[in-house]
Amino acid sequence: MALDRELFESLCIRAREAMLLHSAADALEWDERTGMPIAAGPYRAQQVSTLRAKVHRIRTDARYGEDVQRLMETAGDEDPHGDVGATVRELHRDWNRDRKLPETLVEQTAQATVRGQQAWDAARKADDFGMFRDTLHTVLQLKREAGERLSEDTDQTVYEALLDEYEPGAKVDEIQRVFDEVRTPLVDLISQIKNAPRQPDTEAIERTFNIDRQRDFSHHVAEAIGFDFDRGRLDVTSHPFCTTLGPDDCRILTRYDPHWLPSGLFGTLHEAGHGMYEQGLRGGEWFGLPPGSYVSLGIHESQSRLWENQVGRSRAFWDWLFPQTQQAFSPELDHVSLDTFHFAVNAVRPSLIRVEADEATYNLHILIRFDLERRLIEGTLSVDELPSAWNERYESDLGVRPDSDADGVLQDVHWSAGLFGYFPTYTLGNLAAAQLFKAASDHIGDLEPMFARGEFRPLLDWLRERIHYFGRCYSGPQLVGQATGSPLSADHLVTYLRSKLEPLYGISPA
Amino acid sequence: MALDRELFESLCIRAREAMLLHSAADALEWDERTGMPIAAGPYRAQQVSTLRAKVHRIRTDARYGEDVQRLMETAGDEDPHGDVGATVRELHRDWNRDRKLPETLVEQTAQATVRGQQAWDAARKADDFGMFRDTLHTVLQLKREAGERLSEDTDQTVYEALLDEYEPGAKVDEIQRVFDEVRTPLVDLISQIKNAPRQPDTEAIERTFNIDRQRDFSHHVAEAIGFDFDRGRLDVTSHPFCTTLGPDDCRILTRYDPHWLPSGLFGTLHEAGHGMYEQGLRGGEWFGLPPGSYVSLGIHESQSRLWENQVGRSRAFWDWLFPQTQQAFSPELDHVSLDTFHFAVNAVRPSLIRVEADEATYNLHILIRFDLERRLIEGTLSVDELPSAWNERYESDLGVRPDSDADGVLQDVHWSAGLFGYFPTYTLGNLAAAQLFKAASDHIGDLEPMFARGEFRPLLDWLRERIHYFGRCYSGPQLVGQATGSPLSADHLVTYLRSKLEPLYGISPA
Repeated sequence: MALDRELFESLCIRAREAMLLHSAADALEWDERTGMPIAAGPYRAQQVSTLRAKVHRIRTDARYGEDVQRLMETAGDEDPHGDVGATVRELHRDWNRDRKLPETLVEQTAQATVRGQQAWDAARKADDFGMFRDTLHTVLQLKREAGERLSEDTDQTVYEALLDEYEPGAKVDEIQRVFDEVRTPLVDLISQIKNAPRQPDTEAIERTFNIDRQRDFSHHVAEAIGFDFDRGRLDVTSHPFCTTLGPDDCRILTRYDPHWLPSGLFGTLHEAGHGMYEQGLRGGEWFGLPPGSYVSLGIHESQSRLWENQVGRSRAFWDWLFPQTQQAFSPELDHVSLDTFHFAVNAVRPSLIRVEADEATYNLHILIRFDLERRLIEGTLSVDELPSAWNERYESDLGVRPDSDADGVLQDVHWSAGLFGYFPTYTLGNLAAAQLFKAASDHIGDLEPMFARGEFRPLLDWLRERIHYFGRCYSGPQLVGQATGSPLSADHLVTYLRSKLEPLYGISPA
Repeated sequence: MALDRELFESLCIRAREAMLLHSAADALEWDERTGMPIAAGPYRAQQVSTLRAKVHRIRTDARYGEDVQRLMETAGDEDPHGDVGATVRELHRDWNRDRKLPETLVEQTAQATVRGQQAWDAARKADDFGMFRDTLHTVLQLKREAGERLSEDTDQTVYEALLDEYEPGAKVDEIQRVFDEVRTPLVDLISQIKNAPRQPDTEAIERTFNIDRQRDFSHHVAEAIGFDFDRGRLDVTSHPFCTTLGPDDCRILTRYDPHWLPSGLFGTLHEAGHGMYEQGLRGGEWFGLPPGSYVSLGIHESQSRLWENQVGRSRAFWDWLFPQTQQAFSPELDHVSLDTFHFAVNAVRPSLIRVEADEATYNLHILIRFDLERRLIEGTLSVDELPSAWNERYESDLGVRPDSDADGVLQDVHWSAGLFGYFPTYTLGNLAAAQLFKAASDHIGDLEPMFARGEFRPLLDWLRERIHYFGRCYSGPQLVGQATGSPLSADHLVTYLRSKLEPLYGISPA
């Protein structure tokens, strides 16, 4: 039986209406995080939850379920990676997850995570894990229940069913395999760096940098690498993010530290990388449907990290940008050399805080969280045991031990918001970024002379054609495989870091 | 039969849901006018129209109509000005208007007015009324049809049925009576001013004023008179307005002219006046329901004009603010005297453009539009005859004749947007502002020494208690009558203007 095109169109219309309301709610949340009056929160929460409830209702009503199942049953003749075939498969996938979660559980979780984030915020400020303990326990139980329900009729574990939300189809064993591959060489490299003959001097990037000039300069850099300001904007917020409010409306947000230049600059490169992925997705009739949606958080993060690190921390990039940077921040950077500056923005130092971590140590922060959150979900680690387990792992893996919970287990918002299964996507993104960048260099030719001239379009076009264009028509691993010719591996990240950091630190190659 | 409380609550719940969606659409429109990326317009229009359609559907569905009618039939025992009685009456009123407009007419009008505003914008830029003619004709026909339908089963004329949207219950004869009362003394005063022995020197307020400093100063002034920035914000836009996105979320917008200080300053006072009315309405369960909604555009305008003019152009206000103004705009205002400055911001000069008009001539601009738009709706003036009718009236009423349609009939957006019946509310607001201010002075005592100390709270509290608190529980004329002890009259505006302008211009009182 062939696929009923009229029914397909009718389903797309409903999915598009859900997206209109979903993106309207996202717009309200963007406003909430950029300058909404302080007292406006409670009503804004009502507006957003009313819209989210309407989206959920469209996507789970009985007729929608019947239609998406009927289409799935008759989609056999469609190219599974064509727009129609992929739309049916992915809408069915989404529905099949949504339908498993009863509305009461969705509501309880929404309330518990709002309270969880409030309790987390208060506990972090008071540096008292005890204030967070009970709400974390509640959130954990609700997410475990969700994972149990989502894993029904699948071959997924409870944790995998949660992970699947962010990284569709990912298996813990496979993630564990690449994470194991990356751990030993990273620990080895970090240890060599610690004892290396040369060390960076970061004093120059810790001077006082005017916020307005940082903002103007970040705008310039984002535009130069390819973020389209006719179809997006850059704003200031306390917790940087990227959100898409329409096919031609991508909002990126960063923050500026007057005494730490990298914060705003690399934060902008990172968010612009996310934004250029969103801007490279197909709009028009496919906006918000699977062919025009991002495929996974790992792939999303690969785009942000590639522009932040492989591009933004390369020597060629600073050959181009450093003279302009000196001009923008004169007299602060007047007598700083390019060598000093480039080494400073590539400084590697084991530290307590993930979001401030360098490229090499960053993944160790993730590996700790991946292990701990699996044990929390599996029930082999209790909430009460979490703080000491955290501190022990930091001591053994990074050689630093938090003095306080605020700088330890309370530093990230994720678990309070119920985002179990989210952390590993950061390292998957780092691995994919290195692998994609290597493949792009092999295909396009030497990228460094281009960067040194401020030419980023060839790289962006390569990513557009091989990753962005396809949306969810292929899976994340399929896209990486097709673009690079091999499955995701840890080798590229390790090779990339070694080839950059060994010369900087004066380490003899192994 | 007593009013069914459960049914009443159920209706309120539906009305509140409509308000949640309505205010979400307003938030999207605020964003559209403050910084949305340029290419994002088409999708934003879809988001807004989807939300507006949902609001319309809630407010006109069959069950809603039955329930509001049943409540109206059983509301006889309720205090008509109590919250419950007023809610039933006003929701019934709104429904009774909405139900008369078929969805096709609403959609056609929405499309025609979007096209109308685009055609108006293009025609104004090209200074060519011919480019606007056809779309204006279409909009006019659609609004005439709406007026005809709305006037069915009422004692209203077609024009009054349109006016009723903005000024509920207003009758043309009554408006004409007060407008006639105000016209002769104003024309007389303007003529005396033209030949007066003293004339203002506005050179000091036409110097170059830094935009950032204007913005900071406007923020300070808005806060000082009572706009609550915990529950609102002030932004920049090309066409100033005020919008309310929630019970604690009022957004006011203004624009700054580097060579005309009054633009940003009095624009801010004006919008803050609108904003303080919105912030004075009751929130909580009444937000968006009649007890927590503004009563009419005339009353809304009375609040903005009162703060802009009766307060903001008074001598006592500048006794307080001028030293700070000189400090904020130094060296520009260093050697300017308070006398010169105060006279400059009260300069009266007949001109072509309404939005730039002074207090005395402003109402003559409105009277022209009120006459012309009634004749357009009645069919006694054709679209083709409009430009010359406009120019003739400017010559006879204000003594100035437009050289171009751009500075004449094309200057205002209103008719292109279908806003027939909107203009008279501006002058109704000016009349009410003068009358309310006089009553407030009589009740509170001499306001001038308070203003000279920067004390505005007694005046704001007086307005809160007598106007803001009641929302739509009384009509606009009822509120003015209760607060001032007499029906709306032109005398107070004329007396106010004479008592301020005669001494400034050195005119001997009549």
